[in-house]
Amino acid sequence: MTNHMADTLDFNKARETIKNIAAETKLIYSPVFSKESDNDIYIKPENLQVTGSFKVRGAYNKISKLTDEEKAKGIITSSAGNHAQGCALSAQKLGIKATIVMPKTTPLLKVNATKSYGADVVLAGNVYDDAYAEAVRLQNEHGYTFVHAFDDLDVVEGQGTIGLEILDELADADYIIVPVGGGGLISGVAVAAKRINPNIKIIGAEPAGAASMIKALELNKVTPLDKVVTIADGCAVGKAGTNTYEIVKDYVDEVITITDEELMDAFLILLENHKLISENSGLLSLAASKKLDCKGKKIACIISGGNIDVLSINTLINHGLVSRGRRFSFTLNLKDRPGELTKITQILSEQNANIVELSHDRYKGDNKFADVEVEVSVITESHEHIERVTKAFNDNGYEINRIL
Amino acid sequence: MTNHMADTLDFNKARETIKNIAAETKLIYSPVFSKESDNDIYIKPENLQVTGSFKVRGAYNKISKLTDEEKAKGIITSSAGNHAQGCALSAQKLGIKATIVMPKTTPLLKVNATKSYGADVVLAGNVYDDAYAEAVRLQNEHGYTFVHAFDDLDVVEGQGTIGLEILDELADADYIIVPVGGGGLISGVAVAAKRINPNIKIIGAEPAGAASMIKALELNKVTPLDKVVTIADGCAVGKAGTNTYEIVKDYVDEVITITDEELMDAFLILLENHKLISENSGLLSLAASKKLDCKGKKIACIISGGNIDVLSINTLINHGLVSRGRRFSFTLNLKDRPGELTKITQILSEQNANIVELSHDRYKGDNKFADVEVEVSVITESHEHIERVTKAFNDNGYEINRIL
Repeated sequence: MTNHMADTLDFNKARETIKNIAAETKLIYSPVFSKESDNDIYIKPENLQVTGSFKVRGAYNKISKLTDEEKAKGIITSSAGNHAQGCALSAQKLGIKATIVMPKTTPLLKVNATKSYGADVVLAGNVYDDAYAEAVRLQNEHGYTFVHAFDDLDVVEGQGTIGLEILDELADADYIIVPVGGGGLISGVAVAAKRINPNIKIIGAEPAGAASMIKALELNKVTPLDKVVTIADGCAVGKAGTNTYEIVKDYVDEVITITDEELMDAFLILLENHKLISENSGLLSLAASKKLDCKGKKIACIISGGNIDVLSINTLINHGLVSRGRRFSFTLNLKDRPGELTKITQILSEQNANIVELSHDRYKGDNKFADVEVEVSVITESHEHIERVTKAFNDNGYEINRIL
Repeated sequence: MTNHMADTLDFNKARETIKNIAAETKLIYSPVFSKESDNDIYIKPENLQVTGSFKVRGAYNKISKLTDEEKAKGIITSSAGNHAQGCALSAQKLGIKATIVMPKTTPLLKVNATKSYGADVVLAGNVYDDAYAEAVRLQNEHGYTFVHAFDDLDVVEGQGTIGLEILDELADADYIIVPVGGGGLISGVAVAAKRINPNIKIIGAEPAGAASMIKALELNKVTPLDKVVTIADGCAVGKAGTNTYEIVKDYVDEVITITDEELMDAFLILLENHKLISENSGLLSLAASKKLDCKGKKIACIISGGNIDVLSINTLINHGLVSRGRRFSFTLNLKDRPGELTKITQILSEQNANIVELSHDRYKGDNKFADVEVEVSVITESHEHIERVTKAFNDNGYEINRIL
């Protein structure tokens, strides 16, 4: 394969360079994901990486390659997420001034994490594009070097070190599945891995609502999406990188899409079985492992990062509780007379369903003059348990309407 | 030191034995816990162990030492938690029949996990003691070997392998902090570590509401607690082991207590900074690291397990959101006239506080004829943010009552 950009990448050198800062995360075998896909699934846990994501690899590699003059002037980037932290820590380690422009809407926790690595944070605009424009303005004004989050070959080279590490540990890997946002991670991993084993398959996993790389591959050119809608914020990229696209088209075997629902499912499986937290983008690869058309293969899935807000974890868990039949909410109408509520609570107690909330509203029944609407939320063990609870109410002459 | 029980333990042999089943979990350096205590804190992540806890080490060591006759008859134990899973998997690997008696109240998820390792699960009684009695009955009836969760020297020997692994990786460790339930883990670790380095300090961390080992140490004899109240279910042991107490009194330097509040705090720090989930018992050691009276020491903290129910995680996160100022609920009274609610929502929007819930009840105001009570829950960034929101309401002439 000839790809002039790919041919310039020196991953072994990058690996030496980033030794100062990045951990070599170790593969974790996953019995549960293996069973679900009938393959041997290994997790490459970059959520356990320094700064909570792989981004520090590319950022550090890029920044350490700057000339002394460039280093003296400092770097700038715009990012609301993992790249910001990767750049900030890299610059701090190298003793270089870093300015990071973040949208004003960036959660305070991420702003503080970036500041904690010694970077100057500038808040500008409400969306990423505004922050980017401000970063370009500051770059021109001060002569900073711009460190792009993905569309830069030195960044790609840094990310590719993950490919070397995977094949060091799992030399006979058949597939590597990689989350795709702008394409920086998958470009590096694909070139690094195929240099060692040209037969290895590299699969990209892109959010269904932000499939900019697939669009570029289909139209044979980088083309902006009309809109981006995904819970995988780290991969919510509306336009693939120009350089990364050129590499992906030559080195990546397939890019598949993953829905938000599939990500939420993977979040809970990972949490329950591996005691690991991943951000939504990081789950793209694990979710994709269930959709491959192969059996008995050795597959490494890169979890790209773990920087997820506690509030989002809360939402994912609540969603998971409902989808697993661990929470059940319903309404039913009662005759407005003493003793009716006792019957309801008795049925629930007999069925071992623990009440979380119960509200009783005499203004909301079907028949305003005789009925009372009761809304109940209970903790259940499973979908079968919910069916048993429902049947118990029906057997006692109550109709119930499931809300959640 | 002479302790005839401790002297019989052969940890190197146990380490060879359990190689077949247990992972050698690798220490993780924790910048955040290090900073909080001014020491160097390393996590020994047994939450990432096979079956989600260290228990598999002791169970496998014990079961593999049984005679052929004992193996042929099978093993029995009673447990609602990690020991059940450790025994079930160990017996499965060794091709031995395992019967596990669990209280009927055991969450279905744990029952299913235990069954998934091929064990026969018997549900008996509502509390642990009933399950234990049934296990003893079945043992007598069938001639099974009882595998005690902690008070057994072969089990202690298996758990001690953790001490060897820690000192292999961190030879100059000054302290090891160990969660204490019945005392099996700390007994093994203390003897193993002090044989290598007699100067190392071994600190136990016990739930304040289940401090049975401290009671034994204070009264110089194993004595049951009157009651056990702690969220650290894995360490909710009302009476220390007789054998383990004899070892702890000779080998452990100090046992300190940890409150539920301290565990909840550690849960969120671990989750946010390390992307790791621990069960409450597992957090005892990390919580204890903040309470030691030393600086600049190298300290290994054992996270004993990660088997926590998703519902409990949910509760911990909700609690954490409030304690970190990420959620703020309050009531205020409005005049009952058009436009008042608009003012409220405007103040919140100006203060960047996102509304989660708002309820407006004209029957609940202080003055039933003129006021309306509004209850509001918002997402905030920090305690300072809550103060700013409160001040904005006060500046606009509203008194607010914080609920949460």
